[in-house]
Amino acid sequence: IHSKLPTVGTTIFTVMSKLAEEHNAINLSQGFPDYDCDPKLVDFVADAMKKGFNQYAPMPGLQSLRELIAEKANTLYDADYNPDTEVTVTAGGTQAIFTALSSCITAGDEVIIFEPAYDSYAPAIKLLGGLVKPYEMVPPDYEIDWEMVKKLFTVNTKMIILNSPHNPTGSILTEKDIKALIKLTKNTDILILSDEVYEHIIFDGIKHHSLALYPELRDRSFIAASFGKLLHTTGWKLGYCLAPANLMKEFRKVHQFNVFSVNTPMQVGVANYLKDPETYNGLPEFFQEKRDFFRSLLGETKFKLLPCHGSYFQCVSYAHLNDEKDTDMAQKLVRENGVASIPVSAFYIRKTDHKVLRFCFAKKHETLEKAVEGLMKL
Amino acid sequence: IHSKLPTVGTTIFTVMSKLAEEHNAINLSQGFPDYDCDPKLVDFVADAMKKGFNQYAPMPGLQSLRELIAEKANTLYDADYNPDTEVTVTAGGTQAIFTALSSCITAGDEVIIFEPAYDSYAPAIKLLGGLVKPYEMVPPDYEIDWEMVKKLFTVNTKMIILNSPHNPTGSILTEKDIKALIKLTKNTDILILSDEVYEHIIFDGIKHHSLALYPELRDRSFIAASFGKLLHTTGWKLGYCLAPANLMKEFRKVHQFNVFSVNTPMQVGVANYLKDPETYNGLPEFFQEKRDFFRSLLGETKFKLLPCHGSYFQCVSYAHLNDEKDTDMAQKLVRENGVASIPVSAFYIRKTDHKVLRFCFAKKHETLEKAVEGLMKL
Ligand SMILES: CSCCC(=O)C(=O)O
Ligand SMILES: CSCCC(=O)C(=O)O
Repeated sequence: IHSKLPTVGTTIFTVMSKLAEEHNAINLSQGFPDYDCDPKLVDFVADAMKKGFNQYAPMPGLQSLRELIAEKANTLYDADYNPDTEVTVTAGGTQAIFTALSSCITAGDEVIIFEPAYDSYAPAIKLLGGLVKPYEMVPPDYEIDWEMVKKLFTVNTKMIILNSPHNPTGSILTEKDIKALIKLTKNTDILILSDEVYEHIIFDGIKHHSLALYPELRDRSFIAASFGKLLHTTGWKLGYCLAPANLMKEFRKVHQFNVFSVNTPMQVGVANYLKDPETYNGLPEFFQEKRDFFRSLLGETKFKLLPCHGSYFQCVSYAHLNDEKDTDMAQKLVRENGVASIPVSAFYIRKTDHKVLRFCFAKKHETLEKAVEGLMKL
Repeated sequence: IHSKLPTVGTTIFTVMSKLAEEHNAINLSQGFPDYDCDPKLVDFVADAMKKGFNQYAPMPGLQSLRELIAEKANTLYDADYNPDTEVTVTAGGTQAIFTALSSCITAGDEVIIFEPAYDSYAPAIKLLGGLVKPYEMVPPDYEIDWEMVKKLFTVNTKMIILNSPHNPTGSILTEKDIKALIKLTKNTDILILSDEVYEHIIFDGIKHHSLALYPELRDRSFIAASFGKLLHTTGWKLGYCLAPANLMKEFRKVHQFNVFSVNTPMQVGVANYLKDPETYNGLPEFFQEKRDFFRSLLGETKFKLLPCHGSYFQCVSYAHLNDEKDTDMAQKLVRENGVASIPVSAFYIRKTDHKVLRFCFAKKHETLEKAVEGLMKL
């Protein structure tokens, strides 16, 4: 068999989680909580199964869940998404992204991505015969110079993928970025895929600039979101996509033949749970406390802390310490310090190595403490 | 936005299920049970959530579940699938099919399908730039003339999609079919995608000829399977794919960027439940009883019964009654007889209309009885 993705290996999350397991290291690599979700949420799902909600959900998702999603987005972002035609429940944020790309990228289309970038974007684009046009952001601030982005535009530019709060760097899009984006895309047909799976994990009172807030952008955007991040249940693989009706129509054509529909009891349970928005209102504070705790501990190590405005990832630089490749450094930390991280070069197509590692802090205090104990030995 | 699938509408299953709901009709259209799954299975899943199995499963699926899957296939089909490299858990049979196609079909590749065919195959192929080469099977027996299939072969033939037991016709591949297929594909690089989601729903003591049984075919085949059909939980969206390591390697490259991984508590619960194979051993008898019951009732109506050797679908012909389009006839049955079915023309690209309707009999006796009461009015 001729490989369609000859250069693609196993995703770095799987590689590092497996290595962590093999070495019995503390796993701060792949992004997932090590504490339990709300037991009430579990009860709602168990209840749904017991009540017999075990057959196919409607293809676009459970009606009541779509209504809650639309209401949340419309309230938070002053938008007017129609739950019937502009919301689709997906098997996680990643599937929303893959399906959005599949629904509009064809051979020769160019897609601009901002690196370091979540590692599914580029292979998904390539699989569709698209061309990845990376804009490389650099530490410590990972800012975007929109004049430079403009230079990436060609007649074949089909889409721009944004991600805020940003994985892996914790940077966020500012109002200035949004204004530049609006100007740049005005009078073009360029589509946007906005990965907002960390929308509720944003710190220091900063406001999340969802593209849903801006009618000029909303009308050309797929927005991908994640219940796994909202509810501390990454393993439930439940997310959703928002898009204007004309884009959502194409999205659903692919969705219905990719996964058809999404786990029913999970949808019923989450819909019942989310009727009370109090259930997730404290999320920024919850994670900010963890960020602050982790940063104060990490401050005692030899690493240089990079900024973290959102997401549940903290990046550190070790460029001042040694010249090892970040992939080697990450492996060494597993073996010698008992801590797994993600080498950020994995998020650049060209594997650009700025000597930066990413740690996930969606963990219990004691986990973060033990991890930093190991890192102190550095 | 330029549509990549301009001729694709909403899947017929969604159309008919919605119509059934609107008219309060008995829904024998979309294939799903209207009775509960084993409460023990529900308890296993609830237990998994309560024990904290709520974060990402390993990308290819839970180790223990993959081992059970391999053991089942290896025992039943005298095969030697390796759970580490040749089994991947998917978000349902449909996602297994979509991902298998995505991993190997590129622009210009030709794929032979046998119509009537499950309605996801053709759009998935087209989305990838592939060309669908349909072989049209006809009622009452829906047999395959392999000499005619051979005529569809060109240098661009990349794949053949098979489906046995067959949805919607309930026909099955015989040993003779398999022999012909082996001969036809010998000394070629042609791949096979074998949709075997109804593998355990086969009647009258007929043996399921899984492609896994035949080393010559197994080595070139993706096999898609479904726990939803095995466990009466279509809404859990849990299935799997079997393939030799070289094909599975490519499959996983797509899988990890499509859905990444599959619902963890469902995997844990199903793995614990399946430790006792007794849990599903009675499946053929269970459904054969329903088939026999439904056929005996339907025998009293004006319809002509077509054969049904497997799957949980019964097809009927009304060609001798009137000349209406099957789509109109299906609509009429919803409105006037209170019963939803699937018009089988929906499974042909050219919408070939043989005046055949498909009914799902994975239903309680009382549901089937009430449905036939309505159909008696015909
Ligand atoms: C889908 S596994 C990766 C989880 C994640 O979002 C991350 O670690 O960046
Ligand atoms: C994925 S919805 C359709 C269910 C099914 O397999 C069928 O009805 O044929």
